[in-house]
Amino acid sequence: MKNILSTTRLREDMLEQLENEFGGYEFRFVKSREVTDRDREWADIFVTYGSDMKAEDMQAFKNLKWVMVMSAGLDDMPLSEMEGVHITNAKGIHKIQMTEYTIGLLLNFYKDIHQLNLEQERAYWRKQAVTEEIYGKTVHILGTGSIGSHLAGVLKAFGTETTGYNTKGREVENFDRTLPVDELHAHIGEADIVINILPSTGSTRSMLNEETFRKMKDTAVFVNIGRGDIMTDDTVNAVLSEGYIRHMILDVFNQEPLPPGHKFYEYDNLTITPHASSKTPEYLTRAFEIFIYNLRRADDFDSMENIIDNARGY
Amino acid sequence: MKNILSTTRLREDMLEQLENEFGGYEFRFVKSREVTDRDREWADIFVTYGSDMKAEDMQAFKNLKWVMVMSAGLDDMPLSEMEGVHITNAKGIHKIQMTEYTIGLLLNFYKDIHQLNLEQERAYWRKQAVTEEIYGKTVHILGTGSIGSHLAGVLKAFGTETTGYNTKGREVENFDRTLPVDELHAHIGEADIVINILPSTGSTRSMLNEETFRKMKDTAVFVNIGRGDIMTDDTVNAVLSEGYIRHMILDVFNQEPLPPGHKFYEYDNLTITPHASSKTPEYLTRAFEIFIYNLRRADDFDSMENIIDNARGY
Repeated sequence: MKNILSTTRLREDMLEQLENEFGGYEFRFVKSREVTDRDREWADIFVTYGSDMKAEDMQAFKNLKWVMVMSAGLDDMPLSEMEGVHITNAKGIHKIQMTEYTIGLLLNFYKDIHQLNLEQERAYWRKQAVTEEIYGKTVHILGTGSIGSHLAGVLKAFGTETTGYNTKGREVENFDRTLPVDELHAHIGEADIVINILPSTGSTRSMLNEETFRKMKDTAVFVNIGRGDIMTDDTVNAVLSEGYIRHMILDVFNQEPLPPGHKFYEYDNLTITPHASSKTPEYLTRAFEIFIYNLRRADDFDSMENIIDNARGY
Repeated sequence: MKNILSTTRLREDMLEQLENEFGGYEFRFVKSREVTDRDREWADIFVTYGSDMKAEDMQAFKNLKWVMVMSAGLDDMPLSEMEGVHITNAKGIHKIQMTEYTIGLLLNFYKDIHQLNLEQERAYWRKQAVTEEIYGKTVHILGTGSIGSHLAGVLKAFGTETTGYNTKGREVENFDRTLPVDELHAHIGEADIVINILPSTGSTRSMLNEETFRKMKDTAVFVNIGRGDIMTDDTVNAVLSEGYIRHMILDVFNQEPLPPGHKFYEYDNLTITPHASSKTPEYLTRAFEIFIYNLRRADDFDSMENIIDNARGY
């Protein structure tokens, strides 16, 4: 195993480190659109962001042993066609930026910062600028992996109460309480803020429906930084036009980019951001560190970090 | 001591509590502008936000024993004329909202949230929305009282390094390090973010000057939620027009409200907010709690909370 194909473009300093430490390997850097079947045949190892592997490519990947996915979401990977291929990903590298992004958007909402910024632009000084606090609020987080746990820890420092939901309700660090996700409807009415971080899997698709939102407080704020397909667009339209809750903050959508003219752009009670929660300059550095860590263990797959169970999909 | 004059308007539930628990007192609620010398003469106790006591009023306050200031800043109080009057204030009630406000504005800046909000308004989806992190940044905080310490604690949860400045450099909870303020110029160049929370006193007025800002990193972000007179407008103009640092976020000013047409409204590298960092609906509740706590101890001034040293001014 010595041929590494990468559709992830690396920085100069990273290439240098690869050359110095991994001289025994051959590297081929190719743009996603320009990968040929010859490249695929050549590769033992494939480094990718994960969206450029199609089921029909798998035939050509005759020698593929290991795929290093430089992101956390595997929704686009043809996992069912990849039996026998070892997969690792970069989960854990999102927790810092996604936590900051989520708290930034929540404070932006409760502190009315966008409005204050607009008032500055027209040189207006609001005399009675009273803003709200997140202190004391109850936050329910769907998904208790590394992002959820880190987010809960920082939210805790703000003086919130945090509940996490996962498959079986197992306890997770930083959460005051965890519940099995099938108890969601029984407890979601307690939350002031609901944050979804779940990945897209067979069991999370359309997991949230109108009923879920009707059970929430009408003052609740819902944030989605997980995957857009946790609910249908029809659900979003119903919730926002009926005003079942106070506000939604969506960073992910069923259709991305969200096209101009999409109905979502019409709502005042919706904040839209362009799937940006995890994107900071530190992203590639952290993903590369995991790749290097695993590449050092290429002769012992089991000792790698972030191994994916192909059957479960995470 | 039984006559309580208040220019602070209280909520119904608070008035009820006063009536139930403090029936032995007489209360007179008067608007600041409508207080007469007769009211002043009548009062043993004065409850005020602190900006409606003038030096020339002190003659009329013949019987005044205790002033409960329902805010933290005493800049407008005629302290030198108040010898023998016991003063308590509401310090400590600002820490939660000011911490949230500061972090909200910092994340708004580094995450470019205002810009993302503007893009939503014109249905534009930015494909490469890469934002910055506060994780790993070095934060220097001028002022290590209850606000500074609380802010440092929450910033710590975000993975920042925090240095606090106070008079003698005494250690304070939640700070990685504290330094005496006279070492400011020797260390301020280490900071990515500088936050001022100092009150206005003889020794803080114009404490920050052009030299201070020239010593900062040119990538530094400066936040002022303390008092505007920590620096002159000339200093602000010089720093922003010369670009000594990357950005300023100012919530307090030498002149408030900042009038339309003020030069500050012209800068792109300045965020202006209308002295709003401490204003949330929870404010009055927390100040009232301190007042009640102290009123229960009205026969033993020394046992009260938040006693002010008239000579020091805090």
